[in-house]
Amino acid sequence: MAATPTFALPHAFLGIGNRNPAARFAVAGIPFDLGTTNRAGARFGPAAIRAASRMLADGDNPAGWHNPARLDLADVGDFRIALGDIGASLDLIEGQAAAFPHLVALGGDHTVTLALLRALAKRLGRPVGLVHFDAHVDTWPDNFGQPLAHGSVFRHAIEEGLVEPARMVQVGIRSPVPHEVHAWTHAQGVTILDAESVHLSTPGKVADHIRDVVAGGPIYLSFDIDALDPSQAPGTGTPEVGGLFTWQVMGILRRLDGLDWVGMDVVEVAPPYDVAEITALAGASIAWQYLCLAGFGMALRGG
Amino acid sequence: MAATPTFALPHAFLGIGNRNPAARFAVAGIPFDLGTTNRAGARFGPAAIRAASRMLADGDNPAGWHNPARLDLADVGDFRIALGDIGASLDLIEGQAAAFPHLVALGGDHTVTLALLRALAKRLGRPVGLVHFDAHVDTWPDNFGQPLAHGSVFRHAIEEGLVEPARMVQVGIRSPVPHEVHAWTHAQGVTILDAESVHLSTPGKVADHIRDVVAGGPIYLSFDIDALDPSQAPGTGTPEVGGLFTWQVMGILRRLDGLDWVGMDVVEVAPPYDVAEITALAGASIAWQYLCLAGFGMALRGG
Amino acid sequence: MAATPTFALPHAFLGIGNRNPAARFAVAGIPFDLGTTNRAGARFGPAAIRAASRMLADGDNPAGWHNPARLDLADVGDFRIALGDIGASLDLIEGQAAAFPHLVALGGDHTVTLALLRALAKRLGRPVGLVHFDAHVDTWPDNFGQPLAHGSVFRHAIEEGLVEPARMVQVGIRSPVPHEVHAWTHAQGVTILDAESVHLSTPGKVADHIRDVVAGGPIYLSFDIDALDPSQAPGTGTPEVGGLFTWQVMGILRRLDGLDWVGMDVVEVAPPYDVAEITALAGASIAWQYLCLAGFGMALRGG
Amino acid sequence: MAATPTFALPHAFLGIGNRNPAARFAVAGIPFDLGTTNRAGARFGPAAIRAASRMLADGDNPAGWHNPARLDLADVGDFRIALGDIGASLDLIEGQAAAFPHLVALGGDHTVTLALLRALAKRLGRPVGLVHFDAHVDTWPDNFGQPLAHGSVFRHAIEEGLVEPARMVQVGIRSPVPHEVHAWTHAQGVTILDAESVHLSTPGKVADHIRDVVAGGPIYLSFDIDALDPSQAPGTGTPEVGGLFTWQVMGILRRLDGLDWVGMDVVEVAPPYDVAEITALAGASIAWQYLCLAGFGMALRGG
Amino acid sequence: MAATPTFALPHAFLGIGNRNPAARFAVAGIPFDLGTTNRAGARFGPAAIRAASRMLADGDNPAGWHNPARLDLADVGDFRIALGDIGASLDLIEGQAAAFPHLVALGGDHTVTLALLRALAKRLGRPVGLVHFDAHVDTWPDNFGQPLAHGSVFRHAIEEGLVEPARMVQVGIRSPVPHEVHAWTHAQGVTILDAESVHLSTPGKVADHIRDVVAGGPIYLSFDIDALDPSQAPGTGTPEVGGLFTWQVMGILRRLDGLDWVGMDVVEVAPPYDVAEITALAGASIAWQYLCLAGFGMALRGG
Amino acid sequence: MAATPTFALPHAFLGIGNRNPAARFAVAGIPFDLGTTNRAGARFGPAAIRAASRMLADGDNPAGWHNPARLDLADVGDFRIALGDIGASLDLIEGQAAAFPHLVALGGDHTVTLALLRALAKRLGRPVGLVHFDAHVDTWPDNFGQPLAHGSVFRHAIEEGLVEPARMVQVGIRSPVPHEVHAWTHAQGVTILDAESVHLSTPGKVADHIRDVVAGGPIYLSFDIDALDPSQAPGTGTPEVGGLFTWQVMGILRRLDGLDWVGMDVVEVAPPYDVAEITALAGASIAWQYLCLAGFGMALRGG
Repeated sequence: MAATPTFALPHAFLGIGNRNPAARFAVAGIPFDLGTTNRAGARFGPAAIRAASRMLADGDNPAGWHNPARLDLADVGDFRIALGDIGASLDLIEGQAAAFPHLVALGGDHTVTLALLRALAKRLGRPVGLVHFDAHVDTWPDNFGQPLAHGSVFRHAIEEGLVEPARMVQVGIRSPVPHEVHAWTHAQGVTILDAESVHLSTPGKVADHIRDVVAGGPIYLSFDIDALDPSQAPGTGTPEVGGLFTWQVMGILRRLDGLDWVGMDVVEVAPPYDVAEITALAGASIAWQYLCLAGFGMALRGG
Repeated sequence: MAATPTFALPHAFLGIGNRNPAARFAVAGIPFDLGTTNRAGARFGPAAIRAASRMLADGDNPAGWHNPARLDLADVGDFRIALGDIGASLDLIEGQAAAFPHLVALGGDHTVTLALLRALAKRLGRPVGLVHFDAHVDTWPDNFGQPLAHGSVFRHAIEEGLVEPARMVQVGIRSPVPHEVHAWTHAQGVTILDAESVHLSTPGKVADHIRDVVAGGPIYLSFDIDALDPSQAPGTGTPEVGGLFTWQVMGILRRLDGLDWVGMDVVEVAPPYDVAEITALAGASIAWQYLCLAGFGMALRGG
Repeated sequence: MAATPTFALPHAFLGIGNRNPAARFAVAGIPFDLGTTNRAGARFGPAAIRAASRMLADGDNPAGWHNPARLDLADVGDFRIALGDIGASLDLIEGQAAAFPHLVALGGDHTVTLALLRALAKRLGRPVGLVHFDAHVDTWPDNFGQPLAHGSVFRHAIEEGLVEPARMVQVGIRSPVPHEVHAWTHAQGVTILDAESVHLSTPGKVADHIRDVVAGGPIYLSFDIDALDPSQAPGTGTPEVGGLFTWQVMGILRRLDGLDWVGMDVVEVAPPYDVAEITALAGASIAWQYLCLAGFGMALRGG
Repeated sequence: MAATPTFALPHAFLGIGNRNPAARFAVAGIPFDLGTTNRAGARFGPAAIRAASRMLADGDNPAGWHNPARLDLADVGDFRIALGDIGASLDLIEGQAAAFPHLVALGGDHTVTLALLRALAKRLGRPVGLVHFDAHVDTWPDNFGQPLAHGSVFRHAIEEGLVEPARMVQVGIRSPVPHEVHAWTHAQGVTILDAESVHLSTPGKVADHIRDVVAGGPIYLSFDIDALDPSQAPGTGTPEVGGLFTWQVMGILRRLDGLDWVGMDVVEVAPPYDVAEITALAGASIAWQYLCLAGFGMALRGG
Repeated sequence: MAATPTFALPHAFLGIGNRNPAARFAVAGIPFDLGTTNRAGARFGPAAIRAASRMLADGDNPAGWHNPARLDLADVGDFRIALGDIGASLDLIEGQAAAFPHLVALGGDHTVTLALLRALAKRLGRPVGLVHFDAHVDTWPDNFGQPLAHGSVFRHAIEEGLVEPARMVQVGIRSPVPHEVHAWTHAQGVTILDAESVHLSTPGKVADHIRDVVAGGPIYLSFDIDALDPSQAPGTGTPEVGGLFTWQVMGILRRLDGLDWVGMDVVEVAPPYDVAEITALAGASIAWQYLCLAGFGMALRGG
Repeated sequence: MAATPTFALPHAFLGIGNRNPAARFAVAGIPFDLGTTNRAGARFGPAAIRAASRMLADGDNPAGWHNPARLDLADVGDFRIALGDIGASLDLIEGQAAAFPHLVALGGDHTVTLALLRALAKRLGRPVGLVHFDAHVDTWPDNFGQPLAHGSVFRHAIEEGLVEPARMVQVGIRSPVPHEVHAWTHAQGVTILDAESVHLSTPGKVADHIRDVVAGGPIYLSFDIDALDPSQAPGTGTPEVGGLFTWQVMGILRRLDGLDWVGMDVVEVAPPYDVAEITALAGASIAWQYLCLAGFGMALRGG
């Protein structure tokens, strides 16, 4: 067993020492939160997720008995951003993301996903399928007058052709939203699984539904932590009641094996509002589960 | 879309500017917490619920695509109370409540409901049906020797003929309670749905049960935030484990359409014990959902 | 009804005044947390659980209408421990535990359970069955090089013959763990009910499963508070997402009547990380429910 | 040296085990806060002060090398109060206080001092001198319409002849106050040392000034924790900027030896607003220092 | 005396009801924090300062026995800002500020002062003298590459001719700073009183020094709350040890009477990092003291 | 100026990238807190101090216009420790410390200083002078029966001949302590400057006194953060009222130039009890000031 207690591991994802940018999987932080429409603080998300992830360092994932720390995995530190400038920051992020074969990004607010999808679509030369966990559809045409912020990121992603709407599913949706925004999203062909439908179903069935939507090409996972219930993710900027539980989310994710995963982000972890690091731990657990999915092709069905 | 970010909206329910006391619906705060038997702090509940409610200002309720901010809705500020005097405060509250056609009250501890029901029964000239969410039956004959406080409010309401016990349902009950208090309540004809029974059922079935009990006359909603689980409503005075989840509560409420709603309160939000405003947000979401029910007669079934 | 408000009750379990060490049931605190591998603080668990337990003092348990405060129940204060010395502390704890007919121990970290089981097995002259709620199997051969700490307590208990592995069930398991540790545990004959299996079942069925495993001899309950979800028990040292909910745990426990209970502990409540005392209240509620089980032989089935 | 670590001492003032009501000095808690005009929570003050006081258990007070734990000192628990009823609570408190030879009371809000002074004046058959630390003069004729609450306690004490205004000094005063309230206080002959005058002087000179005012008869110490700066005592209901520092207060107190001390209270510690127990520790340190003064007649001058 | 307890006053500065934009003094909030280089959150500063200011509503300022609530004083609510856009926000702020005869602005981060000074200089047709409390000189040429943010506001103000450097004094300075930034500031003729020099002097002498620098024309007060020590103002974005104490700051301010005050701001109050509202109360107290200075021309010397 | 905002700098002391163990100065963390007699948590001190230190990265120290980040300075990460074993941990720490030319250690509880002094005395072949800031003398013969823990570290250091008592000064002392412990310390020739004496003096005079005691040989600085007042350092295990202020401590330290500094530690920062990172920032500022002293021989006198 490991000789270093959890609390004494290095401040890196899973406490790993690898910093090699050419690793098969690269974990990077993006300390950007200028696009938040309510509470800020996600700039400190990467540090908090890294610290909490050390809880997951010592053992195998019981879902498949894989250990992500044994992958060719590097923690490459944080991306540079431009203070007080949304557009310049997105350009910087896109540029830095381009270098990595397979990126696991720790946000930061949801705006950063646009830059990451731009880099990814450019690298792949095609749009991707999208599994999008969130309380919000994030397809507003603008954010209180600001065209590009965390509530409009997937409007842009669809309009720029970075994602395939027909292979895009939103899970956990429940916020107030203008009906026309919802209708526009639906009209693009996006599948919306609202939070109540997840509560009234099982992880196995939800995973099957998601798989039906996204299969057939490269798939990106964008996980807004506010998909979770505020009790489990208080540390976020725009919480909404009635959210998903981590047992559901982890149960869904670990049944999404065998897909062509090409990247992921976990965003909107805002540590100033967190409690006992539980939001950060949720974020870390989701990234850790993703690495098992993408790294080991773990197979688990039913439930 | 709106031009003002959530965090910059005015400090009023849903950020609305209307202060007209003759509006169809009036939201009022009642900063009173002298009746608490454990932790105080609900005096700050109205301010916290207002602040959190701004998260709900920008969009339609997905359950029916209604927007309560478009109702004839005013935030009339806080009621006056008498410092350190339960009886005088209840009289003041009753007097102020009398003026409003349809009141949405933000407590304050549960004691205030007695004053609100007195004003309502007087105005309607008859008792009302009651949907009462709570961890506690609140029908103690006294509260540690104090006859009138937050644990005895419905004993008084029944004895004063303000509510119809046969059209009264208590949802989420689970606290320790002397058997004779429970038996007395049951003997009045009150229906009790304990918390476990809600967990083992579905929101649709629970809503049907509630509807069966309360239909057939004017109905009041009294929502003690401690009906929710302590994880989702830590900011309250007398939490009990095993509570309801917001997804259940919201699911139940939005299926209680088509009833003759005549008023509501959400009480026992105690901000000094809250975390990241999640209890306040729950309180705000419940009042917001109620406004959809009472204002739009929204219809949603099944589930 | 009682004349003392909750907040003014003495600082003892359920506010009781009995300190008699010969009482039928003795509640004792064990302020020890040297065995924690991540966050410390469980040394303050006993004080916090006692304070929170006063919420449960005024009434009967609705599951059976029993009131544990009416049992011959004493709060005997805290056990002495040895500062900075795991082994010496365990010896001290074992020695003190030996004196009590039926002990309800408030931890402290999980290491203390080894000392309690040693005392119990010695007193009974035989190993016991074990109902063990936890996020972790706690059967590591060592803890980051330390042979005896909170992650290896049941490895020792099995190897020392203090428990019967075939009558041992672990509920709520979900942490990362080396596959060989899990396999070793399984090979001893221990039954593992992971957290997801509880979520996908009902408290009634889980209770039946537990009963099937442990029936047929004296049974000990060891409840690590991290069996609960971090949202409901943030105040603990090694939280894991996807945990059990208190409604499930209380529902399972109250269906485990009619068994031969011989002692219990609730451990790993770490108040420095708690929120609004909710973790402490959960711990208190579990001990209170246990006292009903062990003291009244309460019978409740189904669900 | 002691064998029990600080964190494992019993929950009593200085961790002492003596509960004898006839002890020379009795420490009692008064969990009452109905008289607060802003934030409540002082009902939990006694428990927090006791817990924090254990930091002071292991050693002598460097000011005189005395150890209050060696006095004939008992912790007699908390006084009963009447839920939600100011007048009835004061009567209960007065009745209970009457029994003790020398009381060290842990509040509770400042209203309780009136009951304590009534009991004391009755027992002594004469008014007392008063050293009163506070941010507020507490001589309002009423409190937002309530005649008897924490802002009017010394108006009542003076009018009832419980204290000698000419031997009464208020230290740390700085809050906004109607000029007529200040003028009335001054007109009674009360000496007011505002906070800035303490900052611009030294503890030695301030102590000399206090001694000059109060010498010549029995003296009571009433310490409202909001005399301290909000940074050192955030856990209180009505903080005011510019407050005293603990080094000043402790320096003043330990120079007030050789006086005829007859009782004391430390009030307005409101744990829900405290941070890392620092307000509670300040309250405990003040009571501990008082016990040295009253118990050992410690002599320290100059500075 | 007033009939409304502190906790029940309206959510406005000092709880006042006046909203008239033509009042002699207008209090306005500016919920903007895009210019922060470390921790965000000052967007919530105006709401927190208003809530805390209610502590100051009931009485006269002992420094002169004036009550600012009796001035012709309005709380005009919050200024609009542009989400995620520093430049557009400053333009909006400048435009809104132009309308008010005498503005007391509640920030928001320090960047907003540039907009306020632009509006003021335009209205007066001349530059102003400046009393600037801060831990930082805020004359960086840029902020990590961003030309306009909270660390460069006075570089711009000087270069744009909005302030007279020879009548500008910075009080409380102590942060690390490139020597060339400090030298540039000094070279403009700005007077710098570092924090230690204030600690080694008295409020009276510091006030005399400030008066000597700024007398002879209209004067603006810009108070960055981080001028205060982190213990007294934890709720801010860029704290620095060794800061000023509120007793010093209040003592200095109340001796700055008889000057030609033309406006003020108190900025950088970041409630997510505050404790028990003490930072917000400090901010409110400073604005309240300023209103006495500017509204009553209060005279107090010496000390 | 730097291109990276404070919040985005790497998680290292001052955000530096150098990890070279042969650097002239090495910063190392020691995540050990088994020796705490009250609250634990200092195991997380190194991470918190590193995070907070980034506030000091961008500029020169105004006391001398030096920038420690320009020294040959490495952050070498955290030392290994042995879980749950004081003696084995001290051996590990001593072994690791031996390798570095000049160590700046971030604790961890004060026990670690013994290991550091053992390594240092061995390397130098002689005892060192000691500047020891603390609320406690730390010369107890044992700690509640444990011979080696954070309260006895300097008893051991003196008895083992690691320090020269005649060149040892303790600053900020004020805790309760058995008279014989104080007397023993005094009898060894140690100079004790209690906290009140610092408050009644000036940093300049205190620095002169310290210099007089320790000059004439190599000097080590051991800074227990509880030397500071609990308001400025709430995040620690054994706070005591009446503590030093950071303006005093920084003022004293920056006047201790021209001495032969050979190493330092800052210990007892316990983040679970910290507020808004202010304790961590204080710890970081002290280490940063030390680096200026030791690295630049900065000269500043008077004050």
